[in-house]
Amino acid sequence: MMRLSPPPFQRLQQTHQFDVHYGGSEANVAVSLAQWGLDTEHVSRFPENELGQAAIAHLRSHGVSTQHVDVGDGRLGTYFLEHGTDQRSSKVLYDRAGSAFAHIDPSRFDWEEILADAKWLHWSGITPAISQAAADTCYDAIRAARKLGVTISGDINYRRNLWQYGKTARDVMPTLIAETDVVIGGLTDFENCVGIAASDFTDACRQLQRQFPAVKTIANTYREELSSSQQKISASWWDGKSLLTGRTYTLTSIADRVGAGDAFVAGLIYGSLTEWTKQVTLDFALAACTLKHSVPGDVNRVSVSEVQALVKGVNIGKLLR
Amino acid sequence: MMRLSPPPFQRLQQTHQFDVHYGGSEANVAVSLAQWGLDTEHVSRFPENELGQAAIAHLRSHGVSTQHVDVGDGRLGTYFLEHGTDQRSSKVLYDRAGSAFAHIDPSRFDWEEILADAKWLHWSGITPAISQAAADTCYDAIRAARKLGVTISGDINYRRNLWQYGKTARDVMPTLIAETDVVIGGLTDFENCVGIAASDFTDACRQLQRQFPAVKTIANTYREELSSSQQKISASWWDGKSLLTGRTYTLTSIADRVGAGDAFVAGLIYGSLTEWTKQVTLDFALAACTLKHSVPGDVNRVSVSEVQALVKGVNIGKLLR
Amino acid sequence: MMRLSPPPFQRLQQTHQFDVHYGGSEANVAVSLAQWGLDTEHVSRFPENELGQAAIAHLRSHGVSTQHVDVGDGRLGTYFLEHGTDQRSSKVLYDRAGSAFAHIDPSRFDWEEILADAKWLHWSGITPAISQAAADTCYDAIRAARKLGVTISGDINYRRNLWQYGKTARDVMPTLIAETDVVIGGLTDFENCVGIAASDFTDACRQLQRQFPAVKTIANTYREELSSSQQKISASWWDGKSLLTGRTYTLTSIADRVGAGDAFVAGLIYGSLTEWTKQVTLDFALAACTLKHSVPGDVNRVSVSEVQALVKGVNIGKLLR
Amino acid sequence: MMRLSPPPFQRLQQTHQFDVHYGGSEANVAVSLAQWGLDTEHVSRFPENELGQAAIAHLRSHGVSTQHVDVGDGRLGTYFLEHGTDQRSSKVLYDRAGSAFAHIDPSRFDWEEILADAKWLHWSGITPAISQAAADTCYDAIRAARKLGVTISGDINYRRNLWQYGKTARDVMPTLIAETDVVIGGLTDFENCVGIAASDFTDACRQLQRQFPAVKTIANTYREELSSSQQKISASWWDGKSLLTGRTYTLTSIADRVGAGDAFVAGLIYGSLTEWTKQVTLDFALAACTLKHSVPGDVNRVSVSEVQALVKGVNIGKLLR
Amino acid sequence: MMRLSPPPFQRLQQTHQFDVHYGGSEANVAVSLAQWGLDTEHVSRFPENELGQAAIAHLRSHGVSTQHVDVGDGRLGTYFLEHGTDQRSSKVLYDRAGSAFAHIDPSRFDWEEILADAKWLHWSGITPAISQAAADTCYDAIRAARKLGVTISGDINYRRNLWQYGKTARDVMPTLIAETDVVIGGLTDFENCVGIAASDFTDACRQLQRQFPAVKTIANTYREELSSSQQKISASWWDGKSLLTGRTYTLTSIADRVGAGDAFVAGLIYGSLTEWTKQVTLDFALAACTLKHSVPGDVNRVSVSEVQALVKGVNIGKLLR
Amino acid sequence: MMRLSPPPFQRLQQTHQFDVHYGGSEANVAVSLAQWGLDTEHVSRFPENELGQAAIAHLRSHGVSTQHVDVGDGRLGTYFLEHGTDQRSSKVLYDRAGSAFAHIDPSRFDWEEILADAKWLHWSGITPAISQAAADTCYDAIRAARKLGVTISGDINYRRNLWQYGKTARDVMPTLIAETDVVIGGLTDFENCVGIAASDFTDACRQLQRQFPAVKTIANTYREELSSSQQKISASWWDGKSLLTGRTYTLTSIADRVGAGDAFVAGLIYGSLTEWTKQVTLDFALAACTLKHSVPGDVNRVSVSEVQALVKGVNIGKLLR
Repeated sequence: MMRLSPPPFQRLQQTHQFDVHYGGSEANVAVSLAQWGLDTEHVSRFPENELGQAAIAHLRSHGVSTQHVDVGDGRLGTYFLEHGTDQRSSKVLYDRAGSAFAHIDPSRFDWEEILADAKWLHWSGITPAISQAAADTCYDAIRAARKLGVTISGDINYRRNLWQYGKTARDVMPTLIAETDVVIGGLTDFENCVGIAASDFTDACRQLQRQFPAVKTIANTYREELSSSQQKISASWWDGKSLLTGRTYTLTSIADRVGAGDAFVAGLIYGSLTEWTKQVTLDFALAACTLKHSVPGDVNRVSVSEVQALVKGVNIGKLLR
Repeated sequence: MMRLSPPPFQRLQQTHQFDVHYGGSEANVAVSLAQWGLDTEHVSRFPENELGQAAIAHLRSHGVSTQHVDVGDGRLGTYFLEHGTDQRSSKVLYDRAGSAFAHIDPSRFDWEEILADAKWLHWSGITPAISQAAADTCYDAIRAARKLGVTISGDINYRRNLWQYGKTARDVMPTLIAETDVVIGGLTDFENCVGIAASDFTDACRQLQRQFPAVKTIANTYREELSSSQQKISASWWDGKSLLTGRTYTLTSIADRVGAGDAFVAGLIYGSLTEWTKQVTLDFALAACTLKHSVPGDVNRVSVSEVQALVKGVNIGKLLR
Repeated sequence: MMRLSPPPFQRLQQTHQFDVHYGGSEANVAVSLAQWGLDTEHVSRFPENELGQAAIAHLRSHGVSTQHVDVGDGRLGTYFLEHGTDQRSSKVLYDRAGSAFAHIDPSRFDWEEILADAKWLHWSGITPAISQAAADTCYDAIRAARKLGVTISGDINYRRNLWQYGKTARDVMPTLIAETDVVIGGLTDFENCVGIAASDFTDACRQLQRQFPAVKTIANTYREELSSSQQKISASWWDGKSLLTGRTYTLTSIADRVGAGDAFVAGLIYGSLTEWTKQVTLDFALAACTLKHSVPGDVNRVSVSEVQALVKGVNIGKLLR
Repeated sequence: MMRLSPPPFQRLQQTHQFDVHYGGSEANVAVSLAQWGLDTEHVSRFPENELGQAAIAHLRSHGVSTQHVDVGDGRLGTYFLEHGTDQRSSKVLYDRAGSAFAHIDPSRFDWEEILADAKWLHWSGITPAISQAAADTCYDAIRAARKLGVTISGDINYRRNLWQYGKTARDVMPTLIAETDVVIGGLTDFENCVGIAASDFTDACRQLQRQFPAVKTIANTYREELSSSQQKISASWWDGKSLLTGRTYTLTSIADRVGAGDAFVAGLIYGSLTEWTKQVTLDFALAACTLKHSVPGDVNRVSVSEVQALVKGVNIGKLLR
Repeated sequence: MMRLSPPPFQRLQQTHQFDVHYGGSEANVAVSLAQWGLDTEHVSRFPENELGQAAIAHLRSHGVSTQHVDVGDGRLGTYFLEHGTDQRSSKVLYDRAGSAFAHIDPSRFDWEEILADAKWLHWSGITPAISQAAADTCYDAIRAARKLGVTISGDINYRRNLWQYGKTARDVMPTLIAETDVVIGGLTDFENCVGIAASDFTDACRQLQRQFPAVKTIANTYREELSSSQQKISASWWDGKSLLTGRTYTLTSIADRVGAGDAFVAGLIYGSLTEWTKQVTLDFALAACTLKHSVPGDVNRVSVSEVQALVKGVNIGKLLR
Repeated sequence: MMRLSPPPFQRLQQTHQFDVHYGGSEANVAVSLAQWGLDTEHVSRFPENELGQAAIAHLRSHGVSTQHVDVGDGRLGTYFLEHGTDQRSSKVLYDRAGSAFAHIDPSRFDWEEILADAKWLHWSGITPAISQAAADTCYDAIRAARKLGVTISGDINYRRNLWQYGKTARDVMPTLIAETDVVIGGLTDFENCVGIAASDFTDACRQLQRQFPAVKTIANTYREELSSSQQKISASWWDGKSLLTGRTYTLTSIADRVGAGDAFVAGLIYGSLTEWTKQVTLDFALAACTLKHSVPGDVNRVSVSEVQALVKGVNIGKLLR
């Protein structure tokens, strides 16, 4: 997707200029992993025009392979992002109707070939919300991964304003979650996607696992929002038996919160593939998520060693030279 | 419409920033006339979001009334404009699918009331190209104007990439042109809209009038394009009997050619309503069109006296102080 | 007025670029009310040049009528605004000498006609501080409003660096306040404008009403300034009998505090014309004032529903999508 | 003075941003000479505020001494510059009323001390046009220079929109020109300043010298303006007996023509002080003037060797590396 | 290399901002070929810091493989580019001393493995000018290519200000040219690199081939520089027997001429690998070179079809929509 | 030095634009003192190119004399500054290798002549870290100052990444400190420069004075870094007998912390030369240091009265008008 945002503080209706960024939930995860040194690939469909080319170039610049990307008619999905400050909320104006991605053709992807050497497949709840074709493609990928023994993670982030093609999240998501190993989501996601009503994350996790035994791990970030500028962030990880929690980071000068959840997911996948312990993985993922708030754009331009330094609490606030 | 263009010289696929302008063929004509002191109104449909508000604010800032504008669902029609230079062509990437305007509802407009005090109605060939609803609305307006004795002008600029809703220009345009007093168009427009094949403007005008006796005046601009930076521009006016022509202006450093045709139309209408002679009107319209090339954005921010100074050839190239 | 401010953080003496905004105390109030859907008009005098046109276009873009604006010689009043941060104060460098507004001609305005359909007239203490002609014009408007039964509000904000034409605030303001229904002001304003010395707002209000029985309502905002970046804001409303107070909002990342007082006044007028209760009106006005700090420029680009959401405490700090 | 100009091509009424430059006729000459290695000083009066400081810093940054500059009340003279392009003229909107310079106090300058070690004094026709005090100060300087045997040059550039203080150029200029050695001016300047009507530069020079025998040299630049983008420039030098002329340079992509005349004057003074021949001096001055058109801002940031390369015709159009 | 250039027209000494581009002679060729759909790889050495990463990301974004790039100590070679206009020349200030590339270690590259599947190797005369290590690495690559039967092209562009490590072009270049199939260069290059003095390209080509029989093809571009803004460009191709020439394109509004030679080389290689005829290849290369002047940055962001349209003369100066 | 920094929040590897500032430790001190009205001079060596000229112009613009500056070959020392925010640290990427300054020639400076009328000489620990020649030049200056009775201050700020020429700080610094009157430094500086290990500033000061009896005063700032955005700052002054301390300022929105130490040093020198009491001097220096955090660039653009207002606690957080 292309993201258009006014310069700092300006409102959409007053701006005479947009900053351009490219991103998307799964793409952001792929970029983090690629820049941390893993071989990653993004599989999607883009329009056959200059904006589609720019989106592909964005992925490539970070070392993400785009060899199976399909191109064709339709527009590049767009969103307008207005950064809030203090009591004024941040705001996304979606402009995704008619995107090339919505018209993705499942038959164009041979997932068993695509995933032949893969260790991990990641999908997000945005994809099945876009169109039936996107949901079908997502399901095809999941089934192929399952067949090949590839670990599957799904970030089930629920967005009410998507899901416009006649199906609801509850119609579609259970099938996808049923074959997913690692779920990222919180209470409202669980409620909207699979109808689990719980007042407590542990309880919700237990219910989810009862309903979907394939799910082994459930993780989530927490955000306490004092204002658009001041927030606290933390995270938990349910491993099927117990709940691990991360520390709480205080943010007072947020540059860009979009993609923070994707940065967290990337951290989880990186730690898991590196075979770190769960706590080390969670701490890394949460620190990556925290640092994302300081980086403009959808993707998290921070190195493994920068994330680890934050976990260790070194260099914070320093002028490194 | 919202227009997004990269900073000077940059290509769409490389830019990190878009300049935002608002415009549209009929809207640009209205803005010129309003800033020259005439009461004008723009009637259209905009999305009920911040970008729709910004488009309305743009019109209002120039003194164009928006009191009958309808607002509702859909997106703001958008186009990406890449300014060419030297041998590289300028390029428009349309992104209009699903616009609020395409979903305009003809029944929302009581044209006899809207046009009650009007002297002139202007429509462009873009409108009927967008959707059946837009074509119907355009036709409703024309019929009401006719009934009320309001002069009607139509700029039949033909755009191949529009006309996606199942009808062709030849299906729709003849009905609209049949009730129009002043037509702005050239040979390829005539061919594509009404099937007139002529190698000469005078001949084409004669054929058009034979076919559509209501048409009294036909005008057009001519552009000789040496490169994206160097062009010559002129214009003609067929009054039913003879052909008036304007001088030829040489442009060597074009800032923004979009809207030049609309500036010409505004000049024609202004001169006609001011009851200038035909030649004075044509000279004014052509000079307005020429000056538009020096103004960034879709609208022609020049005063009547600046246009008249160019007609007289005074002040050209001066540093006025 | 035109406001010129360096990019964020830069000092006046180092900048190579100014951001341009248009505003002014009464104009800002009118813009807020117009964008909230009320018919408003701004009556003033602007220079007959491009900058005057731009100021008028600014008002029109927000839907404020400018039909009685006078234009003529003189310059556009200007101020340079340097945004402070942390311990560095924000700074205004006035450059208003010789403005077209200072040369306003009272005889050019037929206030009974202008106010014929009006429900409310608002003036600020800036106007009578500029010149005798401006003070006279202000008084003419107030008398006409009184005669027509139009409610009158006056924001008596006292600025020591204005009042250069030979009169003091104490010479001029009492006459204006004497015929005003709603006064906005604080202890230092009261002292400088009408000589009331009080250590407590309630006491000051009582004294003011004793001296000016026509005044029915007195309201004010309070600001606790920890630094240029961190401030707390609240407000009170004296209704002649008791003191209503608003909550205290904490600001930690102020984008632009200019116009916050005008946003408060607009909220008061909006609530009053909507016939909300006093507390609802005060809460709305204070929330509008608070949100203004997050919007660049002099005017408060926020909707009624955004203000109401802040009053209710919903959505704060969220990323709305 | 401070100059505020919209980004390239934009019109004053549409811009949201101004580029800031500092300059002024005599100041520009001083900057050129300082950067070419001569000791120079600018004597003037600036406001005691941040903008005055910035103007002084501008001069100092180029190595121009400001040790006798006076500071005090008043504003910094300002002008708005809109760059034209093609058929649209460039435009200056003066905003100089009430400047600190207009209130210069002749008694604050001890010209015999200031000029003690000077070889050259330069004044321009802008100065005596601003106020009686400025004219008096100019005359004081000229008389002191004459007494000390310092060479005096005067660029009598006539600006109709200045001269607002009750005197005309013809009232004031003859006295100043009468004691000037080197006059820079053209036919309209001569007519407006001293009433000489001539159709030919040589004839005008002869008349001027007859009237003002102290004048030894008269020089001028010629500009043929095809459009704002395309111009030709040349120059002449009358040495009392014969007319030297320079070649004609063609400009097709003018970046900034303001200060071109000052660049020419600086070249004349530099060549004269370096004791080059008249033709070498004229060629150098004209090449400096020509290059100024390619440099943004009021001052001519080019080196002696760059000017000399243009005179020799080397390196033109090259990419030097 | 990183290129830092001031905004349009500004001089290096006045700018407060640099635009950042990445490029380099061989890299620019690789980017053109990659975006035209060929598999390309760039082999070099970059610093192990954020700027080195950015340079690599630039290559990747265009689809150029960087898998054999070496990273290590040293800085990123930098150059400052000042765009000239009219009579003011463009200027490069090299800042390459101590670059990571200069410290390239020939032993780190196994060229037979790198070139295993290659069809073409391209080198430029910049590389051997930087350091002995760079010259050695270049020679290693050439020998391996020769051994593997890979076609070799060399752009022998001579830069006097490089060659600082104790050897001259004449010491080093002959050995490299001796094993090169396709040479790009002109008269001064031949003179400086191999001591051929000729007044005519055909004659020079004949001499070069006599001296270096392996050279089969020699091509070159010609530039007539009227000013920095107005230039004419053409090209020739010597195939060992006869001289093919291209048409002459006139440029009047050059956006960025850096990389035009590389765009020409890319066109030659593309046409050769596509097995077009020599004239078709030359016409394509020259049109690519011409279009490069309209694209900001070092690389030529134009498609094959845009280049071909220019060869055919269609669309020039149009507004494509 | 030239400093290149991405726009707010951006990371080095993502930026397409650098803001340019000029600065350097001793230069920043000189600029503060010059703008506060003292005669100051900066003695150094700059490259003979446009960037060297720009650095000199920067100093001159603030009124710092550059009359003894040497110019010659080499590049302008550069550093890339990435501003951190929240948990992300700020980062300096040095690019100083091969600077003109490193090649300074001690024999080019006649320090007794340069310091003839001086009252104070200031050096920083950066200088001797650059090269043997720089260290020698620094020592020459110190000895001359000592001989002439000029007070000497040294800011011994230790930077591990400098000191690349074969000597360590401990080899070089003791000789310089031995002849310095006023030392600015903290515990890690003392340890790295002279091998003093102490856990307490007072203890360290006592040890330093025992080792270097010429040192009369030792001062230092303290910084508590909660994040890149939130910090506390304070300072101490050891006068040989007792420790004076300043208050603690809280920063929550840091614009630019580079040069804060230099601002402190400038305050110390200014207070000392003005013969303020130690506490008044320390309070002034600390307030100057605090205000520097709010000013973009390396230099502290604040006036004496602004610093004094902060010491008094007046105007903080106000909008001054």
